[in-house]
Amino acid sequence: MQPSQSTLVTIILAASTGALVFAVALAKWVLARSTGTPEMRKISDAIQEGAEAYLARQYKTISVLAVLVAVLLAVGYGVLRTSAPSDPVQSRTALAIYITLSFLLGALSSGIAGFMGMWVSIRANIRVAAAATTSLNAALQTALRGGAVSGLFTVAMSLLGVGGLFAVLSMLAPSGMDAAVWATKIPFLIVGYGFGASFVALFAQLGGGIYTKAADVGADLVGKVEAGIPEDDPRNPAVVADLVGDNVGDCAGRGADLFESTAAENIGAMILGVVLFKSFGVAGILLPLVIMSFGLVASVIGIMSVRTKEDADPMDALNRGYYLTAFLVSVGLFVACKWLLVSDAAPDAWWHFFLCSLVGVATSIAFVFITQYYTEYRYRPVKTIADASKTGPATNIIMGLSVGMESTVMPVITIVIALVSSFMIGRASGIMIDGAPAGGLYGTAVATMGMLGTCGYILAMDVFGPITDNAGGIVEMSKQPESIRDKTDRLDSVGNTTKALTKGYAIGSAALAAFLLFSAYLDEVKNYNGGVSIHVDLSKPQVFGAALLGGMLVFWFSSLALTAVSKAAQSVITEVRRQFKERPGIMKGTEQPDYAACVDIVTVGALKAMVLPGALVLAFPIIVGLVFKAISGEDHLLGAEAVAGFLMIATVVGILMAGFLNNGGGAWDNAKKYIETGVYGGKKSDAHKAAVVGDTVGDPFKDTAGPSLHVLIKLLSTITLVLAPLFI
Amino acid sequence: MQPSQSTLVTIILAASTGALVFAVALAKWVLARSTGTPEMRKISDAIQEGAEAYLARQYKTISVLAVLVAVLLAVGYGVLRTSAPSDPVQSRTALAIYITLSFLLGALSSGIAGFMGMWVSIRANIRVAAAATTSLNAALQTALRGGAVSGLFTVAMSLLGVGGLFAVLSMLAPSGMDAAVWATKIPFLIVGYGFGASFVALFAQLGGGIYTKAADVGADLVGKVEAGIPEDDPRNPAVVADLVGDNVGDCAGRGADLFESTAAENIGAMILGVVLFKSFGVAGILLPLVIMSFGLVASVIGIMSVRTKEDADPMDALNRGYYLTAFLVSVGLFVACKWLLVSDAAPDAWWHFFLCSLVGVATSIAFVFITQYYTEYRYRPVKTIADASKTGPATNIIMGLSVGMESTVMPVITIVIALVSSFMIGRASGIMIDGAPAGGLYGTAVATMGMLGTCGYILAMDVFGPITDNAGGIVEMSKQPESIRDKTDRLDSVGNTTKALTKGYAIGSAALAAFLLFSAYLDEVKNYNGGVSIHVDLSKPQVFGAALLGGMLVFWFSSLALTAVSKAAQSVITEVRRQFKERPGIMKGTEQPDYAACVDIVTVGALKAMVLPGALVLAFPIIVGLVFKAISGEDHLLGAEAVAGFLMIATVVGILMAGFLNNGGGAWDNAKKYIETGVYGGKKSDAHKAAVVGDTVGDPFKDTAGPSLHVLIKLLSTITLVLAPLFI
Repeated sequence: MQPSQSTLVTIILAASTGALVFAVALAKWVLARSTGTPEMRKISDAIQEGAEAYLARQYKTISVLAVLVAVLLAVGYGVLRTSAPSDPVQSRTALAIYITLSFLLGALSSGIAGFMGMWVSIRANIRVAAAATTSLNAALQTALRGGAVSGLFTVAMSLLGVGGLFAVLSMLAPSGMDAAVWATKIPFLIVGYGFGASFVALFAQLGGGIYTKAADVGADLVGKVEAGIPEDDPRNPAVVADLVGDNVGDCAGRGADLFESTAAENIGAMILGVVLFKSFGVAGILLPLVIMSFGLVASVIGIMSVRTKEDADPMDALNRGYYLTAFLVSVGLFVACKWLLVSDAAPDAWWHFFLCSLVGVATSIAFVFITQYYTEYRYRPVKTIADASKTGPATNIIMGLSVGMESTVMPVITIVIALVSSFMIGRASGIMIDGAPAGGLYGTAVATMGMLGTCGYILAMDVFGPITDNAGGIVEMSKQPESIRDKTDRLDSVGNTTKALTKGYAIGSAALAAFLLFSAYLDEVKNYNGGVSIHVDLSKPQVFGAALLGGMLVFWFSSLALTAVSKAAQSVITEVRRQFKERPGIMKGTEQPDYAACVDIVTVGALKAMVLPGALVLAFPIIVGLVFKAISGEDHLLGAEAVAGFLMIATVVGILMAGFLNNGGGAWDNAKKYIETGVYGGKKSDAHKAAVVGDTVGDPFKDTAGPSLHVLIKLLSTITLVLAPLFI
Repeated sequence: MQPSQSTLVTIILAASTGALVFAVALAKWVLARSTGTPEMRKISDAIQEGAEAYLARQYKTISVLAVLVAVLLAVGYGVLRTSAPSDPVQSRTALAIYITLSFLLGALSSGIAGFMGMWVSIRANIRVAAAATTSLNAALQTALRGGAVSGLFTVAMSLLGVGGLFAVLSMLAPSGMDAAVWATKIPFLIVGYGFGASFVALFAQLGGGIYTKAADVGADLVGKVEAGIPEDDPRNPAVVADLVGDNVGDCAGRGADLFESTAAENIGAMILGVVLFKSFGVAGILLPLVIMSFGLVASVIGIMSVRTKEDADPMDALNRGYYLTAFLVSVGLFVACKWLLVSDAAPDAWWHFFLCSLVGVATSIAFVFITQYYTEYRYRPVKTIADASKTGPATNIIMGLSVGMESTVMPVITIVIALVSSFMIGRASGIMIDGAPAGGLYGTAVATMGMLGTCGYILAMDVFGPITDNAGGIVEMSKQPESIRDKTDRLDSVGNTTKALTKGYAIGSAALAAFLLFSAYLDEVKNYNGGVSIHVDLSKPQVFGAALLGGMLVFWFSSLALTAVSKAAQSVITEVRRQFKERPGIMKGTEQPDYAACVDIVTVGALKAMVLPGALVLAFPIIVGLVFKAISGEDHLLGAEAVAGFLMIATVVGILMAGFLNNGGGAWDNAKKYIETGVYGGKKSDAHKAAVVGDTVGDPFKDTAGPSLHVLIKLLSTITLVLAPLFI
């Protein structure tokens, strides 16, 4: 017996609000920890002030842009476009309102989730620093739970948004329409939510990424290289900006990234569920949201289970928590599939789709291993980079680029196996439409949801990174004893690993999701085209041309992201040099540097620099769609087809480029750390100097361009999903 | 009145043998020049010896591999595969013999062309050095005509091979088959020629590219950086290996690259001509070869026209020659189209296709401009890299990578415009098949041929590069006076530009050709599939998966190429260090270094390193085709379709990556040269040191990985073209 729609909606809303309440409780728990010494508080306050000032200005900029886009959406749908008989609602004004409002709601929710996460993490950092004065376990738990606030808020807000929209809209069925039929229309009306989320995510990740690396590169070049002072030295005027950057980039940025992942992929999976409506009813549409609900519960349990012994590797504790979460998610997947995917015509369907979802869980675990292999110095790749540093920066760079490129191999093979196997398992499920097996795409969708089930935990681990990084900075700058620094150093090093893991996870899920969203796009085009589906035939020169443009966009965007960091870093360097020159007391330690000036300069620089690449990503698919529509001649769907080709190749190239940038950057970072353990002459050796060059090059790779590409991929998917009707 | 088949074949064979005879005459002219002083000859002899030893061993390795592949082809076609009714010849033994023999002939011709070109260029170098003692014009003409031997030999051998095969096979029509019908089968029987050519090209370019950069990077790191001696200093034991490298990489490698371009693209265009057989008859099939014949004549005139004043920029002279060639090619295109493309049903077709061919000429000129913009220091991109060098190697690298990525934008837009516009013009030509416009793809083919028309001249300019580079090295090492060095320096700098231009041209033609070869592949699949055509539908997960794998192959291959250089360079460094340590007289100038030892080490290293990436490129498409065929289920063409997706995305990503690597590398090189003109402190400044790091990173970018990718793209096209029947 399948559960009713209201039961499922209740579960979804209960799980998401429950998780939000739990996140608030966790936040209270974190805030109740000790805030350490006054010296610590002074630094922490400066970080808080800088981070909040940046976020306020960033959100202001994004709000202006979002309102602009909302107006364009409303005009495009409500005025320019004529209604088609196959539209989900007949009034074009109503359609415009649904799309525009869900866009704004998506943007708003993403902003709230990002803000909440960062609000807690900039308060957790000092508490982790203070906890490190007592025990490693206390520090670990404080950091992870601080991160969990962000993780849970992100996933729960996304679920509440999509589930809530579904709940509200399901009450607004047009008169005379069957409730179940109306339910199949809703996913098409709320695609704007995913677009809103990716819109904010792009700018948050891009702006945050530029901020964090401009501050980092600037501080390092002028501090470590020119002035010869250590990292996180309080004499460096850019040091606070650097610590602020960890929060606005890694924390708010990645939060927005995964917020939009879950939002967009939920909607995409729901659209594919609509196709199987005759087999599974509304349960098939709501399955993705139910899986995310169970995933939230699993993540909470996983997070609370983490504890470590004083002398153990904290990474082991985090890994245990992750495996527990993955196991619990698998149980949840079993329950959800068995309970929801009931079909008399296909009695074996449920366990086929359960297998698909396990493929997703396995993929997420595979990505964790692969990322570790390419970015930890226990393994060959990082060691070869360290080895190449002996002959100077040039060979270090060549080897790092080579490792980055190579690191795309295993993830791609994993993705292809996951995609093809879940498709084939789904196709074999026995679900038929018009006599043909029809469960294949839904199989890939369920696999994606299986991968995203552990999202809450992954995100908590990720935000753990900037919190411990900040805690280390606070401990260093407030001149705590060696034994405490040692604890925060250990946590910081684990944080570097978890940050790398999250990026691997984000790419993997983006890749699976891309296919999902792409299929949703084709379904939507079919829907708006009166049920006639299109192919994406690369042998048409126009489609191939659009594909080339899609690949090129990824290179162009990456170039802009790297340049933006370079330019913003340049302004930091100039400012720090000015301070050192005008106030010689700073270097002697007798005068306090002007931290706020640096924070201001990076803020302005990052916000200015994010607009052009962001606008490019928004405008490009629209231009491609409209130009190819204009030259389509008799082939009137050529515009939609060209956009599809554009989107898919941008996705393929984006996945490859993001893997290259993230892993290359991570490997360079750890090659430097490996040398710092004493190999090849250790710190201050020529090999170390060469490795520092690689590390600096890797910074904008792994923290600006790479992560922004995850968002780019998904933004392209959601923007085409929202604008599909305009290209037909 | 359309010309007869025998008239056209006569023109083609006359033009190609005529060009070969002319090339021999040019070679004699070059060899008759003065060979300078005994000191010069000593160095030149060492280069000759090293280059010939390397080429002999490289060809030995390639021969073994080629025979292996030939056996596999013969077994695959003659034993494993069962005949299909739509095969071009019914006996599978005959089919196997045609394919295998044309493969071996293609491989052999490519080898001969590469060898001849290098044979002359390693003899031209010293004559250019000697000519520089008299006048700039003499040196310029000697270098260009030396290069022209290579250029003309390459293009003429390729044309003679394809034209000759056509001529021979046209006499072997099966009894009872109409000669014209048989002519439509021939292109499918000689696809092996293109594969043989790309097979040799891949290993020649890869091995040569690894050789040249391992020697260069190794010599620079241990000479310039460690020992502090200038470039081309005779005390550096790796200096001869470095000069040998210029020949085996830039000269033999690029020659093989463009040999296979013209061969493969001729065959691809002929296959598309078969489609329009009913409109144009055999003339449409032979048009590409006629265009190449006219192009050869135009190139000869262009080359002989080049002369310079003593105080003028030699680049202007080369540009004038290029524009003359392009103009003459355009005239030839007009004649060819007007004369051959006669169709009563479509009287306007000829001028439509003439327009398409002009699109090709315009594309080649656009690529020349774009490449100059991104790699010359008169323009913004190189200047920003130089500027970023002020803050050290890290910012230099970041900016260089950013410029490289950005440099893909304009070429891609150019390619897309060329592709789509030539398709649309061709479609509007009035040629109809079954009532639908059918001239589109032929339009893109003619555009490609228009672009390749100037190939002979371009290649002469390219080989001009290593010849002048070598001449400069000989002048430097034999300690000639400043005024002579100045002349060779000017020529060398022009040679750097022409080398960069050729790479841009090679990418552009590879991109246009890729679509051409891809269309030929689909036509071939259709032909072998009994006339039923396939689409390449990216919305199938398997095709998308194969596409992802195609993109990944490019990253993997690039990684292997970079690592290979790094490893081989490492062995050079170790050897040079050993010599410096064991024989302290070398640095004092009292003892002669052991050049031959370094040459040997790089030879062994390069040959060893080229096997793995080469094998990967060969094996990967076969594995993809067979695996996806195996899991195809009811969709029995899925194997062929997946290979098509794989091929197209590998092509897209390959074009982007090659542009990134080539232009990034070129820009780094010239950023260093820009600083050496005295900007930012000039030579020995910190900015210069940073720029040297960028230049070193750029070396394997622009001379190993990038150029090898051009060949990879085309090898994938030809291998899939040859193996298509196995995937069905």
